[in-house]
Amino acid sequence: MGIVVQKYGGSSVADADGIKRVAQRIVNTKKQGHEVVVVVSAMGDTTDDLRDLAEQVTPLPPPRELDMLLTAGERISMALLAMAVSSLGHEAQSFTGSQAGVITDSVHGKAKIIDITPGRIKSAIDEGHVAIVAGFQGVSQDTKDVTTLGRGASDTTAVALAAALGAEVCEIYTDVAGVFTADPRIVPAARKLDRVSHEEMLEMAASGAKILHLRCVEYARRYDVPIHVRTSFDTIEGTWILPDTADTEGDTVEQAIIAGVAHDRSEAKITVVGVPDKVGEAARIFEVLAGSEVNIDMVVQNVSAAATARTDISFTLPREDGQNAMAALAKIQDEVGYDKLLFDDRVGKVSLIGAGMRSHPGITAKFFASLAAAGVNIEMISTSEIRISVIVDEGQIDTAVRATHTAFDLDADEVEAVVYGGTGR
Amino acid sequence: MGIVVQKYGGSSVADADGIKRVAQRIVNTKKQGHEVVVVVSAMGDTTDDLRDLAEQVTPLPPPRELDMLLTAGERISMALLAMAVSSLGHEAQSFTGSQAGVITDSVHGKAKIIDITPGRIKSAIDEGHVAIVAGFQGVSQDTKDVTTLGRGASDTTAVALAAALGAEVCEIYTDVAGVFTADPRIVPAARKLDRVSHEEMLEMAASGAKILHLRCVEYARRYDVPIHVRTSFDTIEGTWILPDTADTEGDTVEQAIIAGVAHDRSEAKITVVGVPDKVGEAARIFEVLAGSEVNIDMVVQNVSAAATARTDISFTLPREDGQNAMAALAKIQDEVGYDKLLFDDRVGKVSLIGAGMRSHPGITAKFFASLAAAGVNIEMISTSEIRISVIVDEGQIDTAVRATHTAFDLDADEVEAVVYGGTGR
Repeated sequence: MGIVVQKYGGSSVADADGIKRVAQRIVNTKKQGHEVVVVVSAMGDTTDDLRDLAEQVTPLPPPRELDMLLTAGERISMALLAMAVSSLGHEAQSFTGSQAGVITDSVHGKAKIIDITPGRIKSAIDEGHVAIVAGFQGVSQDTKDVTTLGRGASDTTAVALAAALGAEVCEIYTDVAGVFTADPRIVPAARKLDRVSHEEMLEMAASGAKILHLRCVEYARRYDVPIHVRTSFDTIEGTWILPDTADTEGDTVEQAIIAGVAHDRSEAKITVVGVPDKVGEAARIFEVLAGSEVNIDMVVQNVSAAATARTDISFTLPREDGQNAMAALAKIQDEVGYDKLLFDDRVGKVSLIGAGMRSHPGITAKFFASLAAAGVNIEMISTSEIRISVIVDEGQIDTAVRATHTAFDLDADEVEAVVYGGTGR
Repeated sequence: MGIVVQKYGGSSVADADGIKRVAQRIVNTKKQGHEVVVVVSAMGDTTDDLRDLAEQVTPLPPPRELDMLLTAGERISMALLAMAVSSLGHEAQSFTGSQAGVITDSVHGKAKIIDITPGRIKSAIDEGHVAIVAGFQGVSQDTKDVTTLGRGASDTTAVALAAALGAEVCEIYTDVAGVFTADPRIVPAARKLDRVSHEEMLEMAASGAKILHLRCVEYARRYDVPIHVRTSFDTIEGTWILPDTADTEGDTVEQAIIAGVAHDRSEAKITVVGVPDKVGEAARIFEVLAGSEVNIDMVVQNVSAAATARTDISFTLPREDGQNAMAALAKIQDEVGYDKLLFDDRVGKVSLIGAGMRSHPGITAKFFASLAAAGVNIEMISTSEIRISVIVDEGQIDTAVRATHTAFDLDADEVEAVVYGGTGR
């Protein structure tokens, strides 16, 4: 029996009863003969409450101090969880990110993990203890200051620890039963997936599926960490996220063509109208955006109208970056010589994802036909080997998701249980 | 201008407004040209709230984990305070006990400071920053685990840091105006003392005065750290606690004979009745009590009644140790051969303290006469060079304190302001 890393989110440890329930689950895993390392988030809304406190003191808290403040959240939950496990007769020790050897860069608020040196965790589990580790936090290599990894990054802590410890699985516990073929709030007939590949999960996370953080899945793919996403409110199996079987076994027979339909309501679209059709103008625009830390998603350049030698460039970006991007582009209007800027935050992205689609031509045509039949207008398109995404009007997202889900035979015969206990994520 | 260490208690930083008020005071001190190191307690009732949370999870939390949990309290207050100072335009950095170099032994819940290695604090103030340090906590030398120093120990953190940094003063901010000649709730005419010696403060703290922790005063005396106890809710001067002038300057002219009257309601009295008057019996009794970690305060052995060759031994101890002590003594009844045990928790201790009394005979007689005149019966007596304590009936404590205060001319002409803002300590 090997090491199991279990990660419990805030909704699983929202109160004393939740903590005791989670402790029992940890002990059950231990009794099966596993060495157990647990990564835990802050209880319920603790992190938001701490942010509110900071807001009461100053609207612009220094990032170092905000990280110091927020890390109090996991400190509380991990100590309580260690107590609860101990009270069930199994020794448990809690460790901060720093004590667990989560070494990061110095970018407070969204630090990246540079290295994991889990010496104290190894010692603890070698002595038969359960190790409970604070998610979301680390210590900076240069300044030895406490850092946080960004919202939802406890999943990343868990996968990174699982990789460093050579764990046999990283179990991510949440209040949702697993990964679904679509958001069950939009598609009640969505099915829970028994397994998806790392690659598919990566595309789903990047396309708006919120169950796992993008960085966590990237980490899992790079280090081949098997993830099991499941609920802490029931013992049913969830969804396994595994290395692509086509890659590892050359066997795609069992691989479903389509894993699911994802959607994203957080995008906006900017159109730069009347850009002179000269070499370097588009480059200049995206240079400026990159310099303003704006993340571009999809880009479309219209065919130039020969008579005017001008073109329109449209791109999508996170809505929260919208103002920033508009301001940066306004500054170069004279230099680039474009006519005007259009900003549209009433758009959404719908994506079809499936590792099987690379060997099945005709998927794109079927996707577009289903959208057309449902009366959904496609504004932009982008594709990867295992994903097709379209930008549609915000008001048509739900229709588009449902039509696609049905067209690709993803609908279940019966509605499955989805959300347990908590408030969703 | 040298280093000033300021310590703010939980009532001073109970909410965002309190934190901002404290930040302004810190900045004012900085503007006067001082280097400022701040030690802060957890906000308001945070520590008790965290204890309640632990209680909900398990009645007997492992001490290591309880310490991990409780230290979240100062983490929150220190980060918020650093934010508030920064928002006033002065850079501030917060440091955990571990980061501040507060090295302790491994006794979780009541760890003792072994060493202070304030390298990071020195660097911070050398760079012109305000350093904000978590009170109450440290890191164990052996296991590198987080420790707490016991209830009220933030004062000790502050004095220890002041000693290690060679600070010119350690200011202890609280919601009380200073050290008073008696508890103003009992004696409305109590006067605020402008100064007391370390030695007197030590006896007052040991005799029940709650304004400063005994360990903090011991530390200050050992390292000659001047303490200024004052309120954070006003700019008035409080009480200076300084090395004994008779020792350092050979000048006792200004030394008042009596510093004040302290009382303690937390004691109990045990009488071992009919102990055979043989060598070694008393030793055996106190050996057993020491083995049970019971702290004995005063001891009286009655003169043996020659006819029976038996004696009674009475001693006082903290009430909370009462059960423990009775159980330990019951086990040795046959071995020692005493008749019975009497337990009395309806007693209290009243103490008269003053460094001047060692050179003024007659103080004891006057003290006893004033108690007799007030109708107070003395049950036990103990003395040091600068203190006389008596055990009296619990119901007579207030009468005894008032009578003594008046007899030694300590009453003020007018009632002074005492408690500010908060809820007392």
